[in-house]
Amino acid sequence: MPRSTRRRPALTHPATGEIDLLDVLHALSDPTRMTIVRILRAEPERACGTFPVDVAPSTLSHHFKVLRESGLIHQREEANRKFSALRAVDLEQRFPGLLDTILAAHARAEADVQAEPHAQAETCARAETRA
Amino acid sequence: MPRSTRRRPALTHPATGEIDLLDVLHALSDPTRMTIVRILRAEPERACGTFPVDVAPSTLSHHFKVLRESGLIHQREEANRKFSALRAVDLEQRFPGLLDTILAAHARAEADVQAEPHAQAETCARAETRA
Repeated sequence: MPRSTRRRPALTHPATGEIDLLDVLHALSDPTRMTIVRILRAEPERACGTFPVDVAPSTLSHHFKVLRESGLIHQREEANRKFSALRAVDLEQRFPGLLDTILAAHARAEADVQAEPHAQAETCARAETRA
Repeated sequence: MPRSTRRRPALTHPATGEIDLLDVLHALSDPTRMTIVRILRAEPERACGTFPVDVAPSTLSHHFKVLRESGLIHQREEANRKFSALRAVDLEQRFPGLLDTILAAHARAEADVQAEPHAQAETCARAETRA
């Protein structure tokens, strides 16, 4: 059988109503996967090899699988390339406000780090006396 | 040295400004830890042995450590008992709206399961044709 007509297993996606909150939180708890989701928030679709993340191809493939199986992204294959898209509408339907709130929290944390890398000394000291 | 005066290592807690979003998401991605957080959302403090969760003591101890180190809970020791409290104010300061949005999503998912356990067949079928 020629390679082009060999059947690969279909990419499976959970239905919107079956997206599991804990799976979504787990998927978003990794920095590479969070980066992928933030990039996909800003564009409709992207080919999998074009994400600016510094991980081995097999690791990246695992991250996409976790994202897809959690319901965060939809993937499709076309001419031996795989394209990913954020399931933003499905997620908003399943868990209103969740993705935006998490991405806003991430943007806020990133902004804190960039603006004032050493600004937390006073807060630290207070927490230590409390702990 | 008598047992009662032996010093145990102090319980460490991240400062509010150092609470890491990905650590919080990871901590909340486990069903036992999510249950603990939901219980603590409803009361000011609770002794660690009194949570209605069905896991071994060593596993539970690990879950409390993950929750404490993520910044989700504060723990204190008193007379050989450990008490836990949700750091709701700190979390709201660090990531406004995050905890409430996640807990609301969890409550919604739980309500769906209880109300209509088989209501998602149609949604599933649609997703399969799309995938």
